[in-house]
Amino acid sequence: MKLLNDVNYDANGLIPAIAQDETTGEILMMAWMNRESLEETVRTNRAVYYSRSRKKLWRKGEESGNVQKVLSIHLDCDADVLLLRVHQIGDAACHTGHRTCFYREVVEGGNAYKEKNDIIFDPARVYKK
Amino acid sequence: MKLLNDVNYDANGLIPAIAQDETTGEILMMAWMNRESLEETVRTNRAVYYSRSRKKLWRKGEESGNVQKVLSIHLDCDADVLLLRVHQIGDAACHTGHRTCFYREVVEGGNAYKEKNDIIFDPARVYKK
Repeated sequence: MKLLNDVNYDANGLIPAIAQDETTGEILMMAWMNRESLEETVRTNRAVYYSRSRKKLWRKGEESGNVQKVLSIHLDCDADVLLLRVHQIGDAACHTGHRTCFYREVVEGGNAYKEKNDIIFDPARVYKK
Repeated sequence: MKLLNDVNYDANGLIPAIAQDETTGEILMMAWMNRESLEETVRTNRAVYYSRSRKKLWRKGEESGNVQKVLSIHLDCDADVLLLRVHQIGDAACHTGHRTCFYREVVEGGNAYKEKNDIIFDPARVYKK
């Protein structure tokens, strides 16, 4: 697959992938992909990332059910960032239950945060440990 | 500044920053910031990145004039990605002259690209070497 070879992976074999809601244009999250997760994403049209903390493929939504259907994939000029246009099942992308991971706006000259009121689910119920 | 201390910089002291057009919601680019560039961005409301290739602060638009006015800054759940909502002066963010860096859509199962017809300027004229 041409894409897999064109991508400039970083020293750890990873590339950042931004997930953007296809309908609203909201940035839902940014995570990382390795070659294997990118290949699976292209093949299945579901977002598959690489979890740096768990050191393994992260099939987004495998636990929460909040999978991301990938409608299109875009590569940037330097071929070192990916943009996914997605349909977010369950309406929430963030493990905190917020719709997007970027629920904190920086205010007061960098000294405080204003939190978005966009909680969709209760993490304690969705992630049963 | 609280933000500067809360941010989880990577091993190289950097954090990815996504620039999104405030009006259209388009993702214009993703670049990197270090503590110094983030501090200057917050202070001046202009996007200042850190160039990994040139190993110095990159005041976006310093050569092309295409500066980014920063309207808001958002921090993600893990405090390791920034999102900037910007007003892009000159209508183009990419050094190729394209409006956004993500002008290539991946098609044909990852084997080809469809290029957006969104060229705003001629790089040879804007970047006089």
